[in-house]
Amino acid sequence: MIKRSWVCRRCGFKEDLNSYYYRCPKCYFPIDLEYDIEWKPSGWGIYRYKSMLPYTPLISLGEGFTPLVVRELRGVKIWFKLEYLNPSGSFKDRGSVMALSLARSLNYERVIEDSSGNTGVSVALYAQALGLKAEIIVPAAAPLCKKNLIKLFKAAIIEVGDRGRACEEALKRSEVSKAFYVAHAWSPTYLEANKTIAYEAFEQGFRGDAIITPIGSGGLLLGLYKGFSELVELGFIKDLPTIIGVQGVSIRPVYEAIHGVVEIKGDSSIADGIMVPNPPRLNEIASAITKTGGEVVLVNNNEIVQALRELINLGFLIEPTSAAALAALNKVINEGVRIREALIPLTGSGLKMIDDIAKLLSF
Amino acid sequence: MIKRSWVCRRCGFKEDLNSYYYRCPKCYFPIDLEYDIEWKPSGWGIYRYKSMLPYTPLISLGEGFTPLVVRELRGVKIWFKLEYLNPSGSFKDRGSVMALSLARSLNYERVIEDSSGNTGVSVALYAQALGLKAEIIVPAAAPLCKKNLIKLFKAAIIEVGDRGRACEEALKRSEVSKAFYVAHAWSPTYLEANKTIAYEAFEQGFRGDAIITPIGSGGLLLGLYKGFSELVELGFIKDLPTIIGVQGVSIRPVYEAIHGVVEIKGDSSIADGIMVPNPPRLNEIASAITKTGGEVVLVNNNEIVQALRELINLGFLIEPTSAAALAALNKVINEGVRIREALIPLTGSGLKMIDDIAKLLSF
Repeated sequence: MIKRSWVCRRCGFKEDLNSYYYRCPKCYFPIDLEYDIEWKPSGWGIYRYKSMLPYTPLISLGEGFTPLVVRELRGVKIWFKLEYLNPSGSFKDRGSVMALSLARSLNYERVIEDSSGNTGVSVALYAQALGLKAEIIVPAAAPLCKKNLIKLFKAAIIEVGDRGRACEEALKRSEVSKAFYVAHAWSPTYLEANKTIAYEAFEQGFRGDAIITPIGSGGLLLGLYKGFSELVELGFIKDLPTIIGVQGVSIRPVYEAIHGVVEIKGDSSIADGIMVPNPPRLNEIASAITKTGGEVVLVNNNEIVQALRELINLGFLIEPTSAAALAALNKVINEGVRIREALIPLTGSGLKMIDDIAKLLSF
Repeated sequence: MIKRSWVCRRCGFKEDLNSYYYRCPKCYFPIDLEYDIEWKPSGWGIYRYKSMLPYTPLISLGEGFTPLVVRELRGVKIWFKLEYLNPSGSFKDRGSVMALSLARSLNYERVIEDSSGNTGVSVALYAQALGLKAEIIVPAAAPLCKKNLIKLFKAAIIEVGDRGRACEEALKRSEVSKAFYVAHAWSPTYLEANKTIAYEAFEQGFRGDAIITPIGSGGLLLGLYKGFSELVELGFIKDLPTIIGVQGVSIRPVYEAIHGVVEIKGDSSIADGIMVPNPPRLNEIASAITKTGGEVVLVNNNEIVQALRELINLGFLIEPTSAAALAALNKVINEGVRIREALIPLTGSGLKMIDDIAKLLSF
């Protein structure tokens, strides 16, 4: 019998996985899932790793097992993980299939999420496919293309003032209506799902010394950290790769958690997917980075646009946020840091926003 | 030593693969590639099958090894092959990486293609990634979203009156400038690349009795036919699945090649990807279908929109043309045809045209 439980690393709360928490119900700290793992990959998609996950997703829309493509740039062998080829065009689909499968199997009928972008689209897609009603709370200024996609999947869109208000509204509505609050920045389901990127990269041949990944709410970075840590425990790789986290220069909570509050000017607004001021798992993220001897690199709009141009020239059709990681690599290489082989997840598709990308690249 | 040559099944022309022909240089019949095959899959993407292809592509942008997702609808187990998750959002990427790799290795500097849609986008993407200059000749009425994508990949766009003029212009320009005329409807490179869809479906578990696939220029249908024929020759499967080809009711050359000229009214204009009046390999397509005991099914706009709605509700974000195959399945099932398990390739992504899809579904 597989034991699976919710566990709070702070107050010690523990309970079997028969109900849902996006955070600890006792102390409001981020909550985790504890379960047995066994390495026996079989099949495709994230199903392939069901023995390494807390439970098996109920459906597949083709998420996971994305291509890993190698290019040599500035003397570094870069393994690009093409997460933008997931079903809704972003890596969030891994987490959404896990989170919404849980909602479905716990007999929820409605899910609520606050997101201005890829998570909203992804949650709407999986909610529809699983027969769940979805409400997506978005800031009024969210990109039109993403709002249209959410509507196409028949989710209700509720527009509010800004991202902070969206979060409050989602929380309030989920409490009133007893809906499943997806809360991707909190919920361990997204984090656990992202472990599979590490497994895939390993099976597809990556044995490098570094991972360079954008940090929004941190679920991607923490998933990669956990996945590679397990690969070390299993004896498949010797050392954890160094994790370089990437934030925008204007919103830099993880950088400041490590280095203290600093005065830095600059604008990184085009990387909207990583502009998250208060990631709930802030300390966990900072700790994962420092444990691997890593660093947080800050990038600005100019650097991101340059990297975006380079990636599109190489044939990777991604959105601006996804270019932040290459911008960071370019920066650390210029500063003399030596990296042999790096894994870079390319997180979101540019197909959703061709016109915006064309405008950015025309300057 | 691997022997690879161009061969014309009509006039007997034969020549080693050291130059490029999109059709027989002697009799202007469609030309083919002849080469040895050996089954030893290894790695991912279409590289996995390099021993089954005439030559190895020079790069990968993540094309191929798309997910295969099973759903049961109207008593039929349907294996949806998610070709829309290819790098530029359509199955054409398989052919483009093969065709443009050949252009590059034969030292061409420029490629020319006439296409109003997915092929143009795909050729522009691979041309850029391979360092080739591309000219895409499009009818003025081609969808704006696709023209913008082509421009993003820095291909030159030449707008002409209609599809027929685009073809003439491409031919003329390629002769004058000694550019590589991609000619996806003629060139065997696209057809050969599409064989890999059959190999993948087989490896991913498909053992069904039918394939339902849209017919535009026919490269997809012929690739599937060739791929499954080889799987029979290799002894991996016993019988060829029955191939049901799907055309729009208003442009139906393959239907008429089999049944003779008929008078049928109806509009299928929303499936722009299959509205090809003169596929060069018409007889070959008709013959592949009849040899498997298959049929051509004609569908109209209403039937396509209905299937599109059904597919998007299931969580498959595709463009209208891709829904034609499910529309055809619905039709034959209603007519009492018995199918146990069917393979349906979902050919193109809806991410490029969210607004158009939203409009279609709102009626």
